[in-house]
Amino acid sequence: MGNPAFSAWAAAHPAVTVATFAQAAAESDLIVNATSGSVSIEALRLAGAENLAGKVLVDIANPLDFSQGMPPTLFVKDTDSLGEQIQREFPDAKVVKALNTMNAFLMVDPHQLAGGDHSTFISGNDEDAKKIATSLLEGFGHTDVIDLGDISTARGTEMLLPVWLRLWNALGTPMFNFKIVR
Amino acid sequence: MGNPAFSAWAAAHPAVTVATFAQAAAESDLIVNATSGSVSIEALRLAGAENLAGKVLVDIANPLDFSQGMPPTLFVKDTDSLGEQIQREFPDAKVVKALNTMNAFLMVDPHQLAGGDHSTFISGNDEDAKKIATSLLEGFGHTDVIDLGDISTARGTEMLLPVWLRLWNALGTPMFNFKIVR
Repeated sequence: MGNPAFSAWAAAHPAVTVATFAQAAAESDLIVNATSGSVSIEALRLAGAENLAGKVLVDIANPLDFSQGMPPTLFVKDTDSLGEQIQREFPDAKVVKALNTMNAFLMVDPHQLAGGDHSTFISGNDEDAKKIATSLLEGFGHTDVIDLGDISTARGTEMLLPVWLRLWNALGTPMFNFKIVR
Repeated sequence: MGNPAFSAWAAAHPAVTVATFAQAAAESDLIVNATSGSVSIEALRLAGAENLAGKVLVDIANPLDFSQGMPPTLFVKDTDSLGEQIQREFPDAKVVKALNTMNAFLMVDPHQLAGGDHSTFISGNDEDAKKIATSLLEGFGHTDVIDLGDISTARGTEMLLPVWLRLWNALGTPMFNFKIVR
């Protein structure tokens, strides 16, 4: 995909170290689930429920099912969501669904597009955890963080993926985002 | 809901007449399916396949299932869509999915919000029909009509409804819309 080899990237970024899921989770105050949606719960089990308990867990994964080819479908939707599955599996973690509606470049640097004039969403059951997640997003440069409500509202943002994928195809670029005009 | 009685509305709009589905479809060059999604195919059968054949059929319905309470779920999604169901049922109609991602006020008068600076989508198999639908939308004042592709891309726009409903709740108003920033 045009990315440098990991060995070259790692040499250029000596402050970033590699750890097991469990080590990374144990040593972190805030955890980001950036694994593929289809293996997220498995990866978080490897991280260890005890290392997630009481912590903010920002879930940016999407429940994409590529098993039937392109475009992918969703393996959970409408009456449940990946965010809710993770919250149920790890009830002591404070899951906040966020950032799953844009590509990785825009997640961490929204100013790359239209000066950052677009929207992002959060869903979660814990108000303090949503405040912390919002601060993280604002630190990245997001200016319109919309709190949709409890973790069940992740059904809405995860179900944005099908139109996101069609827009990628129609526009010929993944460098776009939703802005909620109101 | 604060609407005037139909008799009062009808007296104030004498140019708008009432007809059966079949009469309305037979006398029209372009047909808009604005029925509830759960009865759309039934209503279009009453309109009559012979009255739809060869015509542009703009489908603005959503497959909302209110049977389990609020918020509604979708009775078809992800691997199929209401737009596709209608196209399969009436193969001689030229179905164009459009306008289903905003409220009725914005459908016909997008300038009511942010001077019309937001987006709308079309999906359909017939290129000429999509051109006609685009002209209709531009006539209403829409300035950013995004052609997502064939009718299967209606899966994407119909699956926008769950986040639309959560946004309505979070924002406290249905007067908002998606803008695709790129």
